[in-house]
Amino acid sequence: MANSDRADTAIAFVYRGTFVHSTQQKALQILKDALLGVDTQGKIAFIEEGKELEKLSQTFGFKTSDITQLAQHEFFMPGLVDTHIHASQYSYAGTALDMPLLQWLNAYTFPVESRFKDLEFARKVYTQIVRRTLRNGTTTACYFATIHTEASLLLGQIANNFGQRALVGKVCMDRNDCVKHYKETLQDSQDETCRFLIPVVTPRFAPSCTGALLEQLGEIAKNNNLHIQSHISETLEEVKLVKELFPESESYADVYYKHNLLTDKTVMAHGCHLSDEELALFRETGASLSHCPNSNFSLCSGVLNVRNVLKHKVKLGLGTDVAGGYSASMLDAVRRALDASKVLTIQDPKYKTLSFEEVFRIATLGGSQALSLDDQTGNFEVGKDFDALRINVAAEGGPIDLIQDEEPKVGLNWLK
Amino acid sequence: MANSDRADTAIAFVYRGTFVHSTQQKALQILKDALLGVDTQGKIAFIEEGKELEKLSQTFGFKTSDITQLAQHEFFMPGLVDTHIHASQYSYAGTALDMPLLQWLNAYTFPVESRFKDLEFARKVYTQIVRRTLRNGTTTACYFATIHTEASLLLGQIANNFGQRALVGKVCMDRNDCVKHYKETLQDSQDETCRFLIPVVTPRFAPSCTGALLEQLGEIAKNNNLHIQSHISETLEEVKLVKELFPESESYADVYYKHNLLTDKTVMAHGCHLSDEELALFRETGASLSHCPNSNFSLCSGVLNVRNVLKHKVKLGLGTDVAGGYSASMLDAVRRALDASKVLTIQDPKYKTLSFEEVFRIATLGGSQALSLDDQTGNFEVGKDFDALRINVAAEGGPIDLIQDEEPKVGLNWLK
Ligand SMILES: [Zn+2]
Ligand SMILES: [Zn+2]
Repeated sequence: MANSDRADTAIAFVYRGTFVHSTQQKALQILKDALLGVDTQGKIAFIEEGKELEKLSQTFGFKTSDITQLAQHEFFMPGLVDTHIHASQYSYAGTALDMPLLQWLNAYTFPVESRFKDLEFARKVYTQIVRRTLRNGTTTACYFATIHTEASLLLGQIANNFGQRALVGKVCMDRNDCVKHYKETLQDSQDETCRFLIPVVTPRFAPSCTGALLEQLGEIAKNNNLHIQSHISETLEEVKLVKELFPESESYADVYYKHNLLTDKTVMAHGCHLSDEELALFRETGASLSHCPNSNFSLCSGVLNVRNVLKHKVKLGLGTDVAGGYSASMLDAVRRALDASKVLTIQDPKYKTLSFEEVFRIATLGGSQALSLDDQTGNFEVGKDFDALRINVAAEGGPIDLIQDEEPKVGLNWLK
Repeated sequence: MANSDRADTAIAFVYRGTFVHSTQQKALQILKDALLGVDTQGKIAFIEEGKELEKLSQTFGFKTSDITQLAQHEFFMPGLVDTHIHASQYSYAGTALDMPLLQWLNAYTFPVESRFKDLEFARKVYTQIVRRTLRNGTTTACYFATIHTEASLLLGQIANNFGQRALVGKVCMDRNDCVKHYKETLQDSQDETCRFLIPVVTPRFAPSCTGALLEQLGEIAKNNNLHIQSHISETLEEVKLVKELFPESESYADVYYKHNLLTDKTVMAHGCHLSDEELALFRETGASLSHCPNSNFSLCSGVLNVRNVLKHKVKLGLGTDVAGGYSASMLDAVRRALDASKVLTIQDPKYKTLSFEEVFRIATLGGSQALSLDDQTGNFEVGKDFDALRINVAAEGGPIDLIQDEEPKVGLNWLK
């Protein structure tokens, strides 16, 4: 590795021990007895084998006595990236999963989201979700807030205060026949999106938006080079509805494409029922998908064929989709992604099940790519932020029981 | 309720607050401000509405100052019943889920189980699994041990010491072509089963046993009125194998039936691929099924149609099936059972998904019925043991974030 050009930056921390992460080549790379240096900007200055200690300490000018040595049962892994989570829906996570998507939105989601004009209520729920997701290891989250600008700004502030990297989207929707007051005028939706600090352009999903709003949002995103997030092809009923609402479009993906909402900074949740042609459109535009398996099971929406998405080389991350998904934990998302893949193998034994290692990559590096943040986070490459979880698999009172003399094995339980 | 006939038993404890349990009539009954009395034998002496306090204190002779009042966010629920768990396999739970059942047994299970002739190794693993399952709320467990009698006895002792109600089965198998030393002679298998303290007659599954062994085990069970446990119809490959090994039997269930191993004290794990005729045979004999959804997903074995099992009025409990299932938590089993049911709804939208309440019943009352222990445990009926979990949904540092002024809702997260 060409580290010498970085040696002018002062080193703030050096860690020695096991590092577990993903690369483009290797779904799970376990680096034992590695040395990782973090500069004063929080960026990774070097990551090399332990035997390079002397060379590194000379090049980067640190004392070997300053090194933090990990214990035998500890390792670092990249922070988890939640590519799709509705912060406002956390207030009812784990309940109300007894109906399909479109009814569910009307019965539970819209009435609760309309409460977020109350900033004190918003502060309470948003503080809880940020603390909870951080505690679960989510260091980067891409949030849907609500249509309320003040409350959405507050969510961004709270995440910032707690040190979570957050993309926050004020939801835009100008079509809602069910909770009539929970929508905006077209003009409001435009103005308020521009006011937002680091906005993610966030049309809720095509059925909640008129073509005029989608077009305006596409313009705003294009003119300001903004991130975009929405939902696509979650359920068959929704796909049918979109076909009726947008008869001029060839497909659901085409609705977003036509309105300049499929870009290399776009992340779309679900995509369970996308055709190969639509996946090709994602690949072409650089748009990504957020796989939310807990939500897809819980609302009986469908099962995403992840292998097919990967085959089409579409960028893919994992999402909790709270509260369609009842868990705010990305480790739950990892387990559900494996379940979803195994369901496809049960249906067709020839289907190549995802490995744990592949899902680990999707939850970390994949997520950073899906959010176009892979220059900053996702794995332990030199130049990226040192965005990491320090895991102790032998922690007192923790979820793992180690058998005597055993090396910790990478598996489904060490992250519980 | 006719409590007066019990008033001669002294009352040891009285609790007042919310009790949540299942009955035959109601999948989830929430009793608010109820009074529950426990006698000196640990049995439930009464459970009535709070307004009956005066009458109860007179009848049962306790002072109102002795009542333990639950806090606002607390409730009692019945202890969870794990109807199928391999204690010995806990040593590799969460790893090694990369192959289908029959290969998996040869690659991982048999080599590890053969280590349990070492009593110190057994003591370590068995202590861990009993402590872990208790911590997860499992107060009753039906264990598979290994073929080693001493170690199986030790498991029973350990469970007893920690206060867990445990059925422990020394595994019987006299057919194993893969790990040649990990099987027994027919004679050993008989003798050692008789020596076991409270044995559950435990043929591993038909493919590991000769007809002669199955017949002997059926005899032992019959003559001593013993519990029986085994596996049935977990994978299609196994069903096919059984058909080849036992060509004289009409079905997999018929193999066990013919050898007197389907009785009203039998619990069979899985049953994913049972025919309606086989389910009818279960119903007729009173044998029960243990649904192990985590294992069924993890090993890509199949998806049990629980609605069809219930329609056939077959007794049904839930199991973790450690380590085919990677989690030793019955709450995980509850969540996976819902996922499995939702998968069936995704495949056929007309399929009536199990409700959370129905799965709660299967995990508690259903489990006690499946193990023929419903005279002792499973819900809060007068005369049963007071076998309960005291849950505080607002516990400091716990998994639940309560929203201000909110009543705790019964849902998927309060048990995390
Ligand atoms: Zn969503
Ligand atoms: Zn089993």
